[in-house]
Amino acid sequence: MRRKASFPMTALADRPTVPSPASALVCRNCGAEYPLGAQHACFECFGPLEIGYDAAALARVTREQIEAGPHTLWRYAGLLPVGQSPATRVESNTGMTPLIRADRLADELGFTAPIWIKDDSANPTHSFKDRVVSVAITAARELGFERIACASTGNLANSVAAHAARIGMPSIVFIPSDLEPAKIIQTAVYGGTLVGIQGSYDDVNRLCSQLSEEDEFEKTGFVNVNIRPYYAEGSKTLGFEVAEQLGWRLPGQYVAPMASGSMLTKINKAFKELVTAGLVDSATWKVFGAQSAGCSPIATAFDAGVNDVTPVKPTGIAKSLNIGNPADGPYALDAVRASGGAMAAVGDDEIREGIRLLARTTGVFAETAGGVTIAVLRKLVEQGRIDTSVETVVFNTRDGLKTIDAISESGAPTAVIPPTLKGMREAGLL
Amino acid sequence: MRRKASFPMTALADRPTVPSPASALVCRNCGAEYPLGAQHACFECFGPLEIGYDAAALARVTREQIEAGPHTLWRYAGLLPVGQSPATRVESNTGMTPLIRADRLADELGFTAPIWIKDDSANPTHSFKDRVVSVAITAARELGFERIACASTGNLANSVAAHAARIGMPSIVFIPSDLEPAKIIQTAVYGGTLVGIQGSYDDVNRLCSQLSEEDEFEKTGFVNVNIRPYYAEGSKTLGFEVAEQLGWRLPGQYVAPMASGSMLTKINKAFKELVTAGLVDSATWKVFGAQSAGCSPIATAFDAGVNDVTPVKPTGIAKSLNIGNPADGPYALDAVRASGGAMAAVGDDEIREGIRLLARTTGVFAETAGGVTIAVLRKLVEQGRIDTSVETVVFNTRDGLKTIDAISESGAPTAVIPPTLKGMREAGLL
Repeated sequence: MRRKASFPMTALADRPTVPSPASALVCRNCGAEYPLGAQHACFECFGPLEIGYDAAALARVTREQIEAGPHTLWRYAGLLPVGQSPATRVESNTGMTPLIRADRLADELGFTAPIWIKDDSANPTHSFKDRVVSVAITAARELGFERIACASTGNLANSVAAHAARIGMPSIVFIPSDLEPAKIIQTAVYGGTLVGIQGSYDDVNRLCSQLSEEDEFEKTGFVNVNIRPYYAEGSKTLGFEVAEQLGWRLPGQYVAPMASGSMLTKINKAFKELVTAGLVDSATWKVFGAQSAGCSPIATAFDAGVNDVTPVKPTGIAKSLNIGNPADGPYALDAVRASGGAMAAVGDDEIREGIRLLARTTGVFAETAGGVTIAVLRKLVEQGRIDTSVETVVFNTRDGLKTIDAISESGAPTAVIPPTLKGMREAGLL
Repeated sequence: MRRKASFPMTALADRPTVPSPASALVCRNCGAEYPLGAQHACFECFGPLEIGYDAAALARVTREQIEAGPHTLWRYAGLLPVGQSPATRVESNTGMTPLIRADRLADELGFTAPIWIKDDSANPTHSFKDRVVSVAITAARELGFERIACASTGNLANSVAAHAARIGMPSIVFIPSDLEPAKIIQTAVYGGTLVGIQGSYDDVNRLCSQLSEEDEFEKTGFVNVNIRPYYAEGSKTLGFEVAEQLGWRLPGQYVAPMASGSMLTKINKAFKELVTAGLVDSATWKVFGAQSAGCSPIATAFDAGVNDVTPVKPTGIAKSLNIGNPADGPYALDAVRASGGAMAAVGDDEIREGIRLLARTTGVFAETAGGVTIAVLRKLVEQGRIDTSVETVVFNTRDGLKTIDAISESGAPTAVIPPTLKGMREAGLL
């Protein structure tokens, strides 16, 4: 009699399809290495840690493997620190958002090369935060955490609470108690624990750092504190997707918004790792960073030619970018300068006009951060600091439905008339 | 010397991949047939027309053709009346929205079989209207229209304006002038012509019917008036996707919200056409319809056992379902009764609880229409009118960000505390 296979098929399905290519936690400041785990600062110099990879493991990943994967960011599991096993992977249908060719926008801005909009408003909670949270919660599971937490002023809170609800993991989200009611509703609806803190975002963040050291929070993963190195890697998938969607090649330029500065640097890291992995041909690209004038500490340091980012007190309508003391500011400066790119900042009226310009030329309705990015692109063109003959990818990272109030003055109909043909004629519409 | 190919490659790429399977416009009332074109009512009996198909053409479509297509609703071009040629196809990255297995929702409702949420909030303007508009604007192009128009109270206006902006086609959208400012902004941002009408939605609709007869509007396609038969077919892609995402099979039950009743009937039509095309095995399924108590003319007719739908004056928070005189009501009654399914209606408090139940068990934040559908599912279980041992698909057709105000009382944090460990302890969180 033929012997039955000795392993159950379900367990086989749960096995990692490829091993994790992550090899260590590496200090971005001094280069010290640590074993993989829930650690975010260097014991030597207190510098921030990031995930280091085994180049040989990256080189084993093929385009065919990726293309055979799910239509979500997990197709890139071979290039991420976690999520190789479908059993731990948190699948929230995040990623593989549209890359939209914006010919009419290119025409208006005087580009002779294509402009592409990477539209991350298509993620489940309508911001790129779903990427970092997908990877962070998967890491939390793999590292043995039993609860997920974050400090946030909006989009991150929303994404953490939604992901926790999706997989049935307890969550505890900390927000400033004076947040706009709409933002509180968007998080509270998922039913996790939501704690309003009487203080600023900095106060919330500091409390989370303290809590992560407490015994009662030993089994709690704070996505942007103790598992931040994993969390931040999620943004790389924006870069991976752009390359695949362009037919496995890199654009000559990209423009990204900056809050902490992390996302911009991770897209750059993604492009480098794609070259290391042999998934795209070696190439050069320029990196451009966008901030709002109400909170432009990184762009200000860029203009001043200095490496130190001086903290500011944020103002202005682009609230999702309002981080006055940006943790990754120096690394964003490095990435942009090393590439030969530039940074710029734009005021609230320019941001609103950026939202409208993108909407009417592409049908994409962006949150204020997207308005910042488009307005900065326009400003860079006017200043002659970006090459309009080079193919350019612009990152739209959040959905306009999140900040409708910011463009409330755009809300008037073209005409208001009685329901008659006569009314149409008198308004010149017939 | 070898002769050069006589056709340019670009023209080749624009050729239809498959011919259109549509054969005629068919009256849903008397069965009279008309040639394909911009006509929506029967000359014989004034009944509504729908697209008829050549069964042999449907049968030529294969799973492999579909799976090799784009990750959007256009993968089903072989089963749609238009869009076979990439040159006319309006590609807005609509469709292929997630089908989410909702095990924790199933547990709460006492289901022993799986419940799946078809989450259409993932479309570009975050409602299923992007499906009907994608197909309608493609039809408008193929039929030679040069401008697109609609009568709407919100989601449809939003989608039409966004699609027109995407392809650079002029648009004229008619709305009641007393619409909520947020809804006006969401449409106005795309820059098309937006006309506020001093009257009700019925007045707006009537004016659009009149305008479609005027010479000045000869080249204007009103998506839900003169090209409605094409428009309505877009909803079928919800059914096609469910079947493909289940591994080319049909669920035993589905629950869909009803406004005009059109979408529910088109999903049913899609399932039938999949069987005709041989893409799924012959099967039976039950259809369930959901309305809000504030506007339940179809569910009321169902309960009364009559075929005539008596118009009502809509009230309640589920505004996107508030069509008091539903055009497809009788056809929805037919579909549900013929299948052995049922209908129910739920009040505003139940709708809000439905939104929260879905959010906390799946991470999906639904608009009020989704709350209606989940609450009706729960009610049908309580009444013993739906079989909890049969696999069930529930359609969530719009995004919660569109109706945040409807659940504003859900917006309170679990606790509000000072930013200290002491504050955490006193709140019992540490």
